[in-house]
Amino acid sequence: MIETGQLVLVISPKGKRFMQALDPAKEIHTHDGRILMSDIAVAGYGGIVRSHLGHPYRVLKPTVYELIKGVKRQTQIMYPKEIGYLLLKLGITPGCRVVETGTGSAGLTTALATYVGDTGMVYTYERREEFYKLAQKNLARVGLSHRVTQHLADIEETGFEQTDADALFLDVRVPQDCLHHIPKAVRPGAMCGFLLPTCNQVSDLLRGLDDGPFTEIEVLEILVRRYKTVADRLRPEDRMVAHTGFLVFARCMEKPAPFTRPAKVAAAEADPDLGPETDGDLSGEEENTEATE
Amino acid sequence: MIETGQLVLVISPKGKRFMQALDPAKEIHTHDGRILMSDIAVAGYGGIVRSHLGHPYRVLKPTVYELIKGVKRQTQIMYPKEIGYLLLKLGITPGCRVVETGTGSAGLTTALATYVGDTGMVYTYERREEFYKLAQKNLARVGLSHRVTQHLADIEETGFEQTDADALFLDVRVPQDCLHHIPKAVRPGAMCGFLLPTCNQVSDLLRGLDDGPFTEIEVLEILVRRYKTVADRLRPEDRMVAHTGFLVFARCMEKPAPFTRPAKVAAAEADPDLGPETDGDLSGEEENTEATE
Amino acid sequence: MIETGQLVLVISPKGKRFMQALDPAKEIHTHDGRILMSDIAVAGYGGIVRSHLGHPYRVLKPTVYELIKGVKRQTQIMYPKEIGYLLLKLGITPGCRVVETGTGSAGLTTALATYVGDTGMVYTYERREEFYKLAQKNLARVGLSHRVTQHLADIEETGFEQTDADALFLDVRVPQDCLHHIPKAVRPGAMCGFLLPTCNQVSDLLRGLDDGPFTEIEVLEILVRRYKTVADRLRPEDRMVAHTGFLVFARCMEKPAPFTRPAKVAAAEADPDLGPETDGDLSGEEENTEATE
Amino acid sequence: MIETGQLVLVISPKGKRFMQALDPAKEIHTHDGRILMSDIAVAGYGGIVRSHLGHPYRVLKPTVYELIKGVKRQTQIMYPKEIGYLLLKLGITPGCRVVETGTGSAGLTTALATYVGDTGMVYTYERREEFYKLAQKNLARVGLSHRVTQHLADIEETGFEQTDADALFLDVRVPQDCLHHIPKAVRPGAMCGFLLPTCNQVSDLLRGLDDGPFTEIEVLEILVRRYKTVADRLRPEDRMVAHTGFLVFARCMEKPAPFTRPAKVAAAEADPDLGPETDGDLSGEEENTEATE
Repeated sequence: MIETGQLVLVISPKGKRFMQALDPAKEIHTHDGRILMSDIAVAGYGGIVRSHLGHPYRVLKPTVYELIKGVKRQTQIMYPKEIGYLLLKLGITPGCRVVETGTGSAGLTTALATYVGDTGMVYTYERREEFYKLAQKNLARVGLSHRVTQHLADIEETGFEQTDADALFLDVRVPQDCLHHIPKAVRPGAMCGFLLPTCNQVSDLLRGLDDGPFTEIEVLEILVRRYKTVADRLRPEDRMVAHTGFLVFARCMEKPAPFTRPAKVAAAEADPDLGPETDGDLSGEEENTEATE
Repeated sequence: MIETGQLVLVISPKGKRFMQALDPAKEIHTHDGRILMSDIAVAGYGGIVRSHLGHPYRVLKPTVYELIKGVKRQTQIMYPKEIGYLLLKLGITPGCRVVETGTGSAGLTTALATYVGDTGMVYTYERREEFYKLAQKNLARVGLSHRVTQHLADIEETGFEQTDADALFLDVRVPQDCLHHIPKAVRPGAMCGFLLPTCNQVSDLLRGLDDGPFTEIEVLEILVRRYKTVADRLRPEDRMVAHTGFLVFARCMEKPAPFTRPAKVAAAEADPDLGPETDGDLSGEEENTEATE
Repeated sequence: MIETGQLVLVISPKGKRFMQALDPAKEIHTHDGRILMSDIAVAGYGGIVRSHLGHPYRVLKPTVYELIKGVKRQTQIMYPKEIGYLLLKLGITPGCRVVETGTGSAGLTTALATYVGDTGMVYTYERREEFYKLAQKNLARVGLSHRVTQHLADIEETGFEQTDADALFLDVRVPQDCLHHIPKAVRPGAMCGFLLPTCNQVSDLLRGLDDGPFTEIEVLEILVRRYKTVADRLRPEDRMVAHTGFLVFARCMEKPAPFTRPAKVAAAEADPDLGPETDGDLSGEEENTEATE
Repeated sequence: MIETGQLVLVISPKGKRFMQALDPAKEIHTHDGRILMSDIAVAGYGGIVRSHLGHPYRVLKPTVYELIKGVKRQTQIMYPKEIGYLLLKLGITPGCRVVETGTGSAGLTTALATYVGDTGMVYTYERREEFYKLAQKNLARVGLSHRVTQHLADIEETGFEQTDADALFLDVRVPQDCLHHIPKAVRPGAMCGFLLPTCNQVSDLLRGLDDGPFTEIEVLEILVRRYKTVADRLRPEDRMVAHTGFLVFARCMEKPAPFTRPAKVAAAEADPDLGPETDGDLSGEEENTEATE
């Protein structure tokens, strides 16, 4: 039994997909006939409902990937390949308070709201009213509005209303003009993330970060290469997405920073060879996790 | 005030890192002198503690990225680039029940346990006792044991004890020999993921998936390219990790599957040009999210 | 003054391109009017000709890249990214005798014929008559027929007519079935190259190479990532070609091979870290080039 | 029979390599004993010589790849992956006159001199005397000195002595300061290439190119991904070279340029989808190669 307000993904025998928050009073109109949402509630996730013409439809619980994919967009949205990585990098976990700018179509907001859970909160800023409203609608549709506080404001001018946020993500054109607002908004040591499409913007942001209380600065991009799924003719797809944006990460310390840039990070950067124990994207840092009684 | 059992990351003025679950009765021994954990509890996340020799150490809440990085490993662990992506793809959210094999050093287990939250559960299988114990220790150390049920078993022989799991991840050498156990373990429509290092293994798994109740099969790899963080000399790092493994995803339907392979996915594969609206890694699928009253 | 038979590339004011071997008796018909080839001969490379309606057209000498690009194709042709690399790897230089199979649309043949010069020769095999004829026409058009000997034959059955060739390239579906013909066709120590689209084919070829007198086996792929050429918004193109094929290289020794697999290559393969002096694609081998009187 | 002055590559039974121009009066000292070069001359390419202790050594003709690899370097040299591509892109063919700056260790010079053949000439500039001399020695060693004219000069100050060169390649720190010298040095329509390590330098060069008589500007990078050559465990190498440099190409027209930027190139850039017929790295341009009598 699926509760009212929960999201359902319904797939036709031919693979056509319908995603909607469950409302037992409504029905879905398909080419195969109408499907009662009250039937969907009874069928449950993984179950099968039939249209009034008898066609079997599979009821599924949408994954976060599908939620992001299903966002009605009027802006470029972030892709799962970047979102998944930044969740780990920013330390977004159940209970977190996260600040995000700009909201856009709420693609990232949807993912953040999913992972902070009912005990966390996403504070999201957007300066254009049309996107503020689009995001509002998109969040309501996936049942995540209660985990999101939307602000209609230009943070470059207003700064952030929050303090002691656990993490912060900026997807704005000129992030370096907003950096001075960050230390007041987050707790010391919070991770900050940025998404930028061009090399020039990354250079400009790095200059800004170098001037502020930011450490552990990283710049990277993530590429997904897909393969054709034919067992006897395994090969990469002919084409791939070559660029969506550069991800920049930094840890915000309060000023005056009592710390110089971590020596090991600096050393790792000077050494073009990462060394065998820092393989993967765990580069340039080593943990010493020993403690004694 | 940090509660007992919560994880703290303490960083020296020179960038040396100590990660530990907080126990007010213990202390950390450093080259700069001893640090009382009771002082750390009072300093709070973002605060500063001093060693008995007066050196300032920064107290931070470790991110999930740092948790994974900090796993004491005797096996190859999965990297954040893959873990972030599969969280979204498998739909791991607070409250989920996830099955994982094999546990290894519990790197992925740590991430899964973080994201299922206190209302979810990770069921993890490992056939080698030494790794079972290592994982037990690693999970205890980061305070996540209560969200993980560990099994010491070879799932190829025993199958899974769970039913109706929300998602499943297999990191074993010959996953196709375990596929027949999956439908009983997960609820219909659950997403399954696999990690495999070689092309030959991917081909073999694809043959197995083609024989079973699996749809929406995908094969991909994720690459992270890092940049030197010098504003006036922005350039990629000289070297990068070129391969960790191939990720394979599939949706498990019950048998007999009432669905043929979704027509749109098949069409997308036949078309080398993904089309503008399915850019990014959202390839090959389109949402129709319209519903009417 | 351009000589008869030499190739000219003529570009309209709007960037439209015409490539043709020069024949002073002919003319080019354009949307801007007719251009006399005798005028082109006089204008010379880099010069300007005018159509009979007065429009200025630039006369250029086509680069090898443009020759390959200009091949009229009915088959998949090889791309410059692979062709450039294999020229160096196979050691194609002026004076070389090279064997190639299959001819296809003669894209690679065109490049090989360019680089062997008037003192070299390309021997190319094709089993389908339509492509044999297409290649004949394409080679004549670019004035390279005298450097190419075309064979209409299935080399799997007939083997090669040549002996002591300097290099050999196989672009066929099942190259391992042709490997036994190679030692007779090339001189000992000659480099051989292969192009294959799928992972499965590469595995099959590797098995074949392991059984024969082949050493220094390499498998690689080449990716070109293009950037938008806007100075203030430098960024990679949104999409790229993700796969054309895998290149395989091997050195053919005569049998019985007096050599075991080079120790250094084996050592380099065992060592995941290539070492600083073997960076780039010069991996895994070191030269000792000292000799004394 | 190998002629005096020709290059030989001699490989020990264990894979140790010796590369040298043949001089019948000399001998090679190895761990397996001495080898007479007069014996090598008689053995011929592909043949076997024996050291005075009876060990068999294979005599090979080095490929261009091996020549480049064998360059004794005191500077960063260009890699075959870039060199192969630029040969095609710049249209380097037997008989060409090419200008290059700076010479460095003569890695690229070696490749260019190989491909222009005995009827062409490479004019190479270097402002540091130590590299001028190193290059001189390296070129003599591989028997290519007669195809190279070396200049000891800073071309930013002196400009080039040549006129009507067929192609030009600049590998200098601030290429935009040298652009004004190029139109005098090359014939109209000649292709020019540049190699730059950082994004900032590429942006600066693009600004310079936009101000000059340059068209068909392209920026790209080339990546080689290598695979482990185990048939049953085919997989990419763990690591790869992630960056050597950005290649920039442009066609130099005389000023005032009678041509605006080709319309089709501009259109292709505006269109994120390259279209099926411009796949590969043949992007953004179409050939119309029809001509009529």
